[in-house]
Amino acid sequence: MITYRNDLWFNINKRRGLINITEAVQQAVRESGVKEGLVLVNAMHITASVFINDDESGLHPDYDVGLEKLAPERPYSLHKHNGYEDNADANLKRTVMGREVMCAITDGKLDFGPREQIFYYELDGKREKRALIKIIGE
Amino acid sequence: MITYRNDLWFNINKRRGLINITEAVQQAVRESGVKEGLVLVNAMHITASVFINDDESGLHPDYDVGLEKLAPERPYSLHKHNGYEDNADANLKRTVMGREVMCAITDGKLDFGPREQIFYYELDGKREKRALIKIIGE
Amino acid sequence: MITYRNDLWFNINKRRGLINITEAVQQAVRESGVKEGLVLVNAMHITASVFINDDESGLHPDYDVGLEKLAPERPYSLHKHNGYEDNADANLKRTVMGREVMCAITDGKLDFGPREQIFYYELDGKREKRALIKIIGE
Repeated sequence: MITYRNDLWFNINKRRGLINITEAVQQAVRESGVKEGLVLVNAMHITASVFINDDESGLHPDYDVGLEKLAPERPYSLHKHNGYEDNADANLKRTVMGREVMCAITDGKLDFGPREQIFYYELDGKREKRALIKIIGE
Repeated sequence: MITYRNDLWFNINKRRGLINITEAVQQAVRESGVKEGLVLVNAMHITASVFINDDESGLHPDYDVGLEKLAPERPYSLHKHNGYEDNADANLKRTVMGREVMCAITDGKLDFGPREQIFYYELDGKREKRALIKIIGE
Repeated sequence: MITYRNDLWFNINKRRGLINITEAVQQAVRESGVKEGLVLVNAMHITASVFINDDESGLHPDYDVGLEKLAPERPYSLHKHNGYEDNADANLKRTVMGREVMCAITDGKLDFGPREQIFYYELDGKREKRALIKIIGE
């Protein structure tokens, strides 16, 4: 069995933002030497998400609008979590979007459908944060 | 280590629909010969979901009603994604429902609780689409 | 390859409640002897969730408030699932929160970010229920 791990670091200069990390994950799969297996990609922070969807520019503001309806950033006093912090909305938004993805590796590559792309979704940025890539297989 | 992959194909004649794929996944587990391991089942399209819940007929319209409140299909102009397409709601609904499930395999079978059933949830149908089954174990 | 399974049992004396199970999962990782691998933790019931977020007391009622807006418990007649049951809201809430988490094991420990904690979220309690821990690795 082969196992592999790597961190992807981010520092986004605004509260929310999306980064396509598909190629970085594909690169990790190549580096691992795994031909058949599974790759886990998860946010290491509880105010960020890793998820899979289309890389289509109109869709990105659609997420923001939908998530603001579910878990508005303001007023901060809306959320009990916001005693000393102002990021309760980020914890709730990330719960809806999901923490992690699991992807199949087949023949040394991500075994993906035609439009699948992996994103890191920063929901409380302006600081260094990271995602974990863990691969097992052979 | 044993690895196994298979595609499940669907062609649902309406926009939205649910298919119970538990037996198809169980069949893949049997074919794989894996006695102890993990199985990933994921939608290969970004407008469909694979998730686990009860196979109870009242629950299915409850999903539809809940998801329509969160991410309505119409008016199509509500979503920026709908420039050349009309399926932004499907991308958003699938994000809430989830892309994939991971299940344990124990003693050659899905290691499931009493009511767990795996579903493929088509959210933008009327065409051929598929889900991936990937198994690793021994 | 090493594989390991264990059940965690719960019996919460109210409809909804959160239990931090991080140490129990860490204990299972130690017992398994796996140094590098993956651990799956999933609810075995379709009215409960396993998810990862901060262990911060203000956040817990924030989940309850947010989920009640999405899928209210009452009136029970709101949901078609509630023919003979009253827990449709629990099925819907769990779908939003998620059934399972996958975590990396590195150097014999959960490979976690600084605030990550694993929770069992009971959404229809007052009875015995359980979560599954399944580990594969070496």
